[in-house]
Amino acid sequence: MYYIGIDLGGTNIAAGVVDENGKIIYKESTPTNRGRSYKEIIKDMSMLTLKVIKTASVSLSDIKSIGIGSPGTPNSKEGVLIYSNNLMFENVPMRVEMQKHIDLPVFLDNDANCAALAESVCGAAKDVQDSVTITLGTGVGAGIVIGGKVFSGFNNAASELGHTVIVSGGEKCTCGRKGCWEAYASATAIIRQTKRAAQENPESIINKLINGDLSKIDAKTAFDAARQNDKVGEKVVSQYIFYIAEGLINIINAIEPEMIAIGGGVSKEGEYLLKPLREFINEGTYCTQVAQTQIKVAQMGNDAGIIGAAMLGR
Amino acid sequence: MYYIGIDLGGTNIAAGVVDENGKIIYKESTPTNRGRSYKEIIKDMSMLTLKVIKTASVSLSDIKSIGIGSPGTPNSKEGVLIYSNNLMFENVPMRVEMQKHIDLPVFLDNDANCAALAESVCGAAKDVQDSVTITLGTGVGAGIVIGGKVFSGFNNAASELGHTVIVSGGEKCTCGRKGCWEAYASATAIIRQTKRAAQENPESIINKLINGDLSKIDAKTAFDAARQNDKVGEKVVSQYIFYIAEGLINIINAIEPEMIAIGGGVSKEGEYLLKPLREFINEGTYCTQVAQTQIKVAQMGNDAGIIGAAMLGR
Repeated sequence: MYYIGIDLGGTNIAAGVVDENGKIIYKESTPTNRGRSYKEIIKDMSMLTLKVIKTASVSLSDIKSIGIGSPGTPNSKEGVLIYSNNLMFENVPMRVEMQKHIDLPVFLDNDANCAALAESVCGAAKDVQDSVTITLGTGVGAGIVIGGKVFSGFNNAASELGHTVIVSGGEKCTCGRKGCWEAYASATAIIRQTKRAAQENPESIINKLINGDLSKIDAKTAFDAARQNDKVGEKVVSQYIFYIAEGLINIINAIEPEMIAIGGGVSKEGEYLLKPLREFINEGTYCTQVAQTQIKVAQMGNDAGIIGAAMLGR
Repeated sequence: MYYIGIDLGGTNIAAGVVDENGKIIYKESTPTNRGRSYKEIIKDMSMLTLKVIKTASVSLSDIKSIGIGSPGTPNSKEGVLIYSNNLMFENVPMRVEMQKHIDLPVFLDNDANCAALAESVCGAAKDVQDSVTITLGTGVGAGIVIGGKVFSGFNNAASELGHTVIVSGGEKCTCGRKGCWEAYASATAIIRQTKRAAQENPESIINKLINGDLSKIDAKTAFDAARQNDKVGEKVVSQYIFYIAEGLINIINAIEPEMIAIGGGVSKEGEYLLKPLREFINEGTYCTQVAQTQIKVAQMGNDAGIIGAAMLGR
């Protein structure tokens, strides 16, 4: 049997035929053209689905279900997308509308949960039952898997770990609170932290790396400076990794997953990120007499959305 | 059928015969005399168990299991108490030792988890499947119940919600981290906050309430001053409730329990605590388009330990 995974994003719709081990047989994508009605977008999703099934030379009767990973807050039980700021959707009946085009079971969850499920089925967390996948990007995305299944609370809105406060009264967050983990540990956060450090320390290598143009600072800049032994860059990186650790230790003390997988652009720093991160975590975790949570880099990359969505039906 | 619940504390051992609805038929307690060997203490636990069974006029064959709630970190699967600072126990084989005296199934969990299970079975959270019980006492205790069962992570060490940081770099916590929720939201914390406010504001009613003796400040003092419209007391209380809310919102955004029950001495302030707490929470929660977590006062009081321990075997 095969599963269809649809990664519905603000820019592109990606769909793939996925086998029961989470391997993509064939995938393709088409622009979302956000701003259109949900009926138009879901029609495109169904056409793309039929196209990938056909191109993969798979029969429709071999497809067990369609899974949709979407930004925003889903009601997974009802198959309704309650709200997505990104897609400008409110109370969209994804399942019912999709089934008007293709008569298959349709599952829905949010994109961060799908990414976590993908890591759990065939990625960094494939050998454990309980895991958390964190994506350090524009924001801090998070998905929780317990007993091999996505955990999202009684109302499907859980695992917004990026919006747990670690610095009460601190940096303003996009969600309205002050001091959220996302405001300290996202790629957006390290860019802000690097800019401030560059402005306060004109002598730093950071300013050379960007030719004095602050708009050129990205999430890698401070890491690049630190690798050239720039003290300012080292301090920015160390403080940033400490903030990531603060949130991870909170997750560990709260729910003790067997594995935390870290994805997103920043995770490409690999051991340069993970080594100090593990040191901070070892210092800060509460129960040291028991087995400890492992920290790994996420493995599924851009395919996580398709694979995780597909695995919703497994 | 009946269940034995044993609440093993640093001061007293309490044991009760509990029916399948969580009602205590008979209970009794005996001093722990902490510092003795685990064999002596467990022998006392078994003798107390046999005594309550006899006094309750129940036959041993009507008892389905014995549950033990203990401070510290248990390995519930193996029935071993890994570590308890309070009892000075390390790797104590509670189940095996108990079964030397009474041949019944023995379950073990920590006291905060037992309190949460008691609220879930027959207390504030009895109508929901997913709940969190918080106890605001010397520390901040927490237990998580998911699907009617205690959730404690892959290594039984989870739900240390008191040791999640809300003020990175803030007040030193007993666990070694800085800025834990416990250091801002426990009874100990409001006592410290009230003392500071009293010292900084000699004119405050707080100083009258304690006759100028700072050692008389307890967790109620600032609430009492606030009820007399003392501005300093009002400020301490409002800030304290905000800190409680910061941790609760973090729990909601992370795991979205259907209910959070709040116990411990501070919870006796009732609506004087809950009303502003709910206002802070409404402002700070992330997903407002879905059903919201309810906040209630815990109902089980001192019996929570016995009842929750008993229900481990249900």
